[in-house]
Amino acid sequence: MSSPAVTAEIGDLPETSALSSGATVWLTGLPSAGKTTVARAAADRLRANGRRVEVLDGDAVREHLSAGLGFSRSDRETNISRIGFVAELLARNGVLVLAAVISPYESARSEVRNRHATNGVPYLEVHVAAPVEVCSSRDVKGLYARQRAGQIRGLTGVDDVYEIPAEPDLVLRTESLSLGESVDQVLTLLAKRGLL
Amino acid sequence: MSSPAVTAEIGDLPETSALSSGATVWLTGLPSAGKTTVARAAADRLRANGRRVEVLDGDAVREHLSAGLGFSRSDRETNISRIGFVAELLARNGVLVLAAVISPYESARSEVRNRHATNGVPYLEVHVAAPVEVCSSRDVKGLYARQRAGQIRGLTGVDDVYEIPAEPDLVLRTESLSLGESVDQVLTLLAKRGLL
Repeated sequence: MSSPAVTAEIGDLPETSALSSGATVWLTGLPSAGKTTVARAAADRLRANGRRVEVLDGDAVREHLSAGLGFSRSDRETNISRIGFVAELLARNGVLVLAAVISPYESARSEVRNRHATNGVPYLEVHVAAPVEVCSSRDVKGLYARQRAGQIRGLTGVDDVYEIPAEPDLVLRTESLSLGESVDQVLTLLAKRGLL
Repeated sequence: MSSPAVTAEIGDLPETSALSSGATVWLTGLPSAGKTTVARAAADRLRANGRRVEVLDGDAVREHLSAGLGFSRSDRETNISRIGFVAELLARNGVLVLAAVISPYESARSEVRNRHATNGVPYLEVHVAAPVEVCSSRDVKGLYARQRAGQIRGLTGVDDVYEIPAEPDLVLRTESLSLGESVDQVLTLLAKRGLL
């Protein structure tokens, strides 16, 4: 049985809530390449214009979704897959997702991309492509220093593999771009694909 | 540096995309109590009225987020926590989330509820409360039969604990309600809380 009162209240909803198309913008690259920095700055610009935006930072999400997983290839793949799943859930609900994830494996990135494609959810891959020397000198989290000191192993781009994206939708050379320029390029890409 | 062309395109966005308030509706109860059935039927009604809705089914989400986890108390708690995290991400982006999760532990449910409260994301707990005898006779997934046959152990409500919600926002006695009546009660609750 349907309650007329409830139905009327539902009918009062603005029908505009389904207008915006979501998308996943997947930023891949070495540690300290600038993925999270670009994602957050782009998110600020997009939010200021009324978009629903979510930044999924690989390290932060790992705590919630992948506690117990390490940095073996298998564990990294699982973590990437989980972030991809969550990104897709958000994107298919109209959210612009900026996922900042090292995601060193082409196969794992392709799996996320293909799942989006299968489900008709827009997906863009951005290679945040500063050279390892630049990333190492930035060393935001001190990872490169710890690797040099022998305190950690398996640092992507140094003593662990990073497979360069074969066909990214955008390559950001953050070593020669200002943050604003990087954000502009991401927003321009979104605009070109009709996602703004 | 900001590109005027891009800024103009962003400015063309409809500003209406941020209007609807999201929420998590957490349906807890025994296997075969009707959680997923009510969630899906409510989702259909809400979608028909233009809402963004996502059903998070505990079993389905488990495959994506918690492969490798079992049904120990610790593993169940982790799974509940992950679903709660994803629900909150969606809800804070305007999505009405219907999470159908056995979630037998008061402490784990409280953690999810408290995290929502801390972050100002609306959260409603619905106890889908058919008696175990009714659930056992429905036995949608054959779990009760398998438990009786000694093929599985740790079935919630039979040989594993189900802690009845202390202060649910709604109790659905699905054994004496039609599906439409159950959905009405969920939608009425949402309406009362200003979430429709």
